[in-house]
Amino acid sequence: MSLAQALFAPRAVALVGASGDATKNTARPLRFLRKHGYGGRIVAINAIRSQVLGERAYTSLAEAPGTIDHAFVMTPGDTVELAVEACGARGIPVVTIFTDGFAETGPEGAARQARLAARARALGVRLLGPNSMGLIDIPGRVALTVNAVLEMDALPVGTTSVVSQSGTMLGTVLSRGAARGLGFAKLVAVGNEADLGVGELVELLVDDRDTRVILLFLETVRDAARLASAARKAHAAGKPVVAYKLGRSGLGEALARSHTGALAGSDRAIDAYFRDCGIVRVDMLETLIEIAPLVAGRSPPDLARAPRVAVVTTTGGGAASVVDRLGTLGLEAAVADAPLRAQLSALGVRISDSPIVDLTLAGTSQTYEAVLQALLDSSACDTVLAAVGSSAMFHPQLAVEPILHAPPRAKPLVAFLTPHAERSLALLAAKGVPAFRTPEACADALAAFFAWRAPREQPAFAAIPWPTDLPRQGKLDEAHALALFGRLGVPVVESAEARAPDYAHALAYPVAAKVRSLDIAHKTESGGVALGIANGREYGKRVAALLAAVATAHPGARIDGVLVQRMESGLAEAIVGYRHDPLVGPLVLVGAGGTLAEIYRDYALRPAPVTEDDAAAMIAEVKGLATIRGYRNLPHGDVAALARAVAALSRLALVAGQPVAEAEINPLIVKRDGVVAVDGLVALKA
Amino acid sequence: MSLAQALFAPRAVALVGASGDATKNTARPLRFLRKHGYGGRIVAINAIRSQVLGERAYTSLAEAPGTIDHAFVMTPGDTVELAVEACGARGIPVVTIFTDGFAETGPEGAARQARLAARARALGVRLLGPNSMGLIDIPGRVALTVNAVLEMDALPVGTTSVVSQSGTMLGTVLSRGAARGLGFAKLVAVGNEADLGVGELVELLVDDRDTRVILLFLETVRDAARLASAARKAHAAGKPVVAYKLGRSGLGEALARSHTGALAGSDRAIDAYFRDCGIVRVDMLETLIEIAPLVAGRSPPDLARAPRVAVVTTTGGGAASVVDRLGTLGLEAAVADAPLRAQLSALGVRISDSPIVDLTLAGTSQTYEAVLQALLDSSACDTVLAAVGSSAMFHPQLAVEPILHAPPRAKPLVAFLTPHAERSLALLAAKGVPAFRTPEACADALAAFFAWRAPREQPAFAAIPWPTDLPRQGKLDEAHALALFGRLGVPVVESAEARAPDYAHALAYPVAAKVRSLDIAHKTESGGVALGIANGREYGKRVAALLAAVATAHPGARIDGVLVQRMESGLAEAIVGYRHDPLVGPLVLVGAGGTLAEIYRDYALRPAPVTEDDAAAMIAEVKGLATIRGYRNLPHGDVAALARAVAALSRLALVAGQPVAEAEINPLIVKRDGVVAVDGLVALKA
Repeated sequence: MSLAQALFAPRAVALVGASGDATKNTARPLRFLRKHGYGGRIVAINAIRSQVLGERAYTSLAEAPGTIDHAFVMTPGDTVELAVEACGARGIPVVTIFTDGFAETGPEGAARQARLAARARALGVRLLGPNSMGLIDIPGRVALTVNAVLEMDALPVGTTSVVSQSGTMLGTVLSRGAARGLGFAKLVAVGNEADLGVGELVELLVDDRDTRVILLFLETVRDAARLASAARKAHAAGKPVVAYKLGRSGLGEALARSHTGALAGSDRAIDAYFRDCGIVRVDMLETLIEIAPLVAGRSPPDLARAPRVAVVTTTGGGAASVVDRLGTLGLEAAVADAPLRAQLSALGVRISDSPIVDLTLAGTSQTYEAVLQALLDSSACDTVLAAVGSSAMFHPQLAVEPILHAPPRAKPLVAFLTPHAERSLALLAAKGVPAFRTPEACADALAAFFAWRAPREQPAFAAIPWPTDLPRQGKLDEAHALALFGRLGVPVVESAEARAPDYAHALAYPVAAKVRSLDIAHKTESGGVALGIANGREYGKRVAALLAAVATAHPGARIDGVLVQRMESGLAEAIVGYRHDPLVGPLVLVGAGGTLAEIYRDYALRPAPVTEDDAAAMIAEVKGLATIRGYRNLPHGDVAALARAVAALSRLALVAGQPVAEAEINPLIVKRDGVVAVDGLVALKA
Repeated sequence: MSLAQALFAPRAVALVGASGDATKNTARPLRFLRKHGYGGRIVAINAIRSQVLGERAYTSLAEAPGTIDHAFVMTPGDTVELAVEACGARGIPVVTIFTDGFAETGPEGAARQARLAARARALGVRLLGPNSMGLIDIPGRVALTVNAVLEMDALPVGTTSVVSQSGTMLGTVLSRGAARGLGFAKLVAVGNEADLGVGELVELLVDDRDTRVILLFLETVRDAARLASAARKAHAAGKPVVAYKLGRSGLGEALARSHTGALAGSDRAIDAYFRDCGIVRVDMLETLIEIAPLVAGRSPPDLARAPRVAVVTTTGGGAASVVDRLGTLGLEAAVADAPLRAQLSALGVRISDSPIVDLTLAGTSQTYEAVLQALLDSSACDTVLAAVGSSAMFHPQLAVEPILHAPPRAKPLVAFLTPHAERSLALLAAKGVPAFRTPEACADALAAFFAWRAPREQPAFAAIPWPTDLPRQGKLDEAHALALFGRLGVPVVESAEARAPDYAHALAYPVAAKVRSLDIAHKTESGGVALGIANGREYGKRVAALLAAVATAHPGARIDGVLVQRMESGLAEAIVGYRHDPLVGPLVLVGAGGTLAEIYRDYALRPAPVTEDDAAAMIAEVKGLATIRGYRNLPHGDVAALARAVAALSRLALVAGQPVAEAEINPLIVKRDGVVAVDGLVALKA
């Protein structure tokens, strides 16, 4: 018996702690399994009753007869461990634990959970949960859950499966989907993921014959590598993975130890990570449900330009409400080309300058169908949006049926219905036409669809050894940081270490002088930096002044001499950063320099390492770097050199053991010809 | 008979062009009036039939007997004018014109519409439309519309009224509202607003006893002054006005003639305008419907700090989906203070560090009620959000009923239900509790509610005469522009006009020299600007070079000498602009200087004129001006002087006749002490 079978298709289920009081939560799994037609054997375990809702009950798992494939545990706190032991003893391969009070309550609960997981592993028992609301296999008629939504009479069968970190959300997705005719295959609440996690469940669903699309409701990502690998497998199997993930606001506060840390806040990191492994991310909750028919059977569009949306409608206001939103998300309205104009004209449809084909009260359903087909076959657009007005509520024959009759194409045809029109939504769902209740979810889905990329091919770089002459712990001072960056291939400012007593150096003037000390965090504020030193005479004076200022500001600080650098100038400043994100691992960042990256959150982020092509795409995303891309006739900066520097810093991810916690070049000066790093910091992991 | 009576409560309605074919659109008004219980007399007008759907029909308005208060015209093109003439002849005071083909089709249609409106005015007939789908008065049982949604059996009665520029959207609002138990009073589709416009309809609704909240679906604003005045009346009457307006994207392209023009794009202007006159603006379509109970009977909260939301829930994931969204909109989660902690603790509710009070599966409904009351009465929060999970679908007694029993307070209590739960939504609606279907609309509504401000008191400034020594048309050159700014009270750079042959001036060095010519748009690019001139010797050389460069670049340009200015420097640059927006009139803008305002769209906008306090609030909205507000220990700039300059420029709106189309100070240099305008432009209206 495979894990998937024991989990989703158990021949017998033990309900540990099943209540005899039909109004209790713990009575629900028994009621729901029966109500929804479970074909296997139900074994109720109740410490004090011999009957539970008419079912023979046993006092313990040990006592229950026959083979049991899956135990569902609802008993309080301490008894969970005993139940897992009993499963191990009886050879029950899978346990779902509904009981809460584990890692979600704090460190003590986390420790109990870790012990439970370790014990289960030792016993060869796989765990779903704890704190899991259970799972549902609709085609298989297994409703093994306490979710109250299962009181509904008929569960809608479909080919979309759901993995959720919130148990409630299974009910949300199921009930809302049902209300618009969307069906599901498997729905799983993973709870605390002590053992079976989101990644492994996605793997199981990749192998599931009933599943075509996988939806994820996420509050966090607990095993980014496993999920990424599962997403890549799903892509290879042609099964789109779509995620709705919380945590877009208030981000990064706990992680804001340093400048780069604050910038590479976790949600932007998650966004980059999803994109990297081919997961479609939606912004709105209902989009998660409604997008399934849009992605099912389709591949990432990978368009190199802004997507062009053609719109056909019987309601100007309704269509405009979607189009307006699409515009804010960067999509464009399609402009009819000559062949399309000719075709529409032949159909008697006048195209005005507006990109919306308005058939209000004018077209017959035959015209409507012909227009849809012309748009679907036109090379002037990448998708067709049909906005249907009031008729969708009581007269689907007018504008909904033509959509149903449209020929299936790789190019998506999506519908937005302005009134409350559940029957029409269901008609569209039954034909696999993506249909949306709100203009916002419709636009969100199209934007998410067109932002969908195939998983990035992971560059095959060689590992890099840590330079033997650099420290292996703590922070690197600026000289060491620049030395490391140089070793990675980043052009760095010409520098010299100058030491007492005379602080001599051999650099050509003008130069900058900076005190070297790991004990001084803010050198500029402490008077420890002198810029634009024109000649040797000035150098002596200003270094003396600098050392005096630092001695006053930080009497106890250890001073490692002075770092002398050639003065550099260019067209713009950039910031290039690297950090090891606690959720998704190594990341590289590029932003506009000065305060722009921080004030405007204007930076691009990718999982590291990246190629120069990836880096060039990142640079193109940074608004503030427009000034070096030919904005308003300003001179062009060396974008290619900047891309090389970004790719070079990203190779910190290839250093054996990934010892770097964070690194930052700030600023990297971008010139007409080349770039140069003039300041930097590196912090190694603890 | 008042306009309102003839419009909404006609004793007799003539249906001009009523069809005898029940399946036609033009048969709908007769069917819908009957179906929804119209108590007045229906007079069908049909050119060829003597009976229409069993109703006696007349061939013309002239022939129809009795007093008619309202005619609804559905006949094609040219006959509309005849119908209006007939209404005038018979003394019918109001005509609603469903017929389309007027201003919405182009200039020719616009001209026909203007003639129609003029003729109606001459006849003393008021027009709704043309291109109007009609209107509905639900309490009055008048369903005078062709909107197909009126096929629904029972129209939901309520106290919310709707004015829409889209006819379809009446059906959208009505059917979606009905599906969640929300009712309506009057719904009006204004069509092309040839006569009766949104503003006047809002005025009628302010006086309407059945109306408590006024919702607007807008594609544009045709008479901003009238709507603003109506909104102020609505505020005075305690009737909130809420708008959903399209046009948030692709904005400003047509208006992008100049720098300021492009920045003060119309949607940002509309936003500022709505706020100015106390209209609540929502971002999402369904928020427009769902927000009504939140604003009904409430005043603008006018909070000076970020709103604090307390959350009580039976579903962690569901609550988080709203809270996460609230965070992106700038709201904060409430942190329980000591009294609240004590109260909750006494109720047996453990408050963790999370701001969410999670009662999942734990609390009884009594506890739930007590927690709600404690939160509603606590000073630690500004609103209470109750997120209800799966139980909302089949077990409203668990977590929905406690919300129904919560004591009514000025502080809003709102609900978000995660499953598809129309019955619970209706229960909440019946009690006037704002309840939301989606986390996004819930967050949007709360954000819109807390952004709601009372209409701004219009500052009582004296009118300003146009300086007699400045041109009255075309563009002002830089010297004239700076002179105008100075006259308004903006500190301007010390300048001198230098003329051939020796271009002498008396300013102290260093100075800048700029060629004066209205024929040269881009002086810097043409070599017409010399900065940082250190002394008289250098001055002579560089002015000669400058004139030579300009003569080469623009051989035919008329040169009006050279403008010499003191060189100025400061901590930061700002841009201050003024423009006459075609929709909402005079606006003032302040943004970060350089390219920031444009690249990041980082500026604040208000209807002009503004007070210094208004201007200070604007400056606080500009992210890029953080650098003069004490960001990262940078020195503070003179924000008060900047505010004075913004207020000063805004007084262009007070100049008799408002002759200025646009004006811009770019840059205004902000110093530690004071500000100074060093460049500017002014364009007068054509």
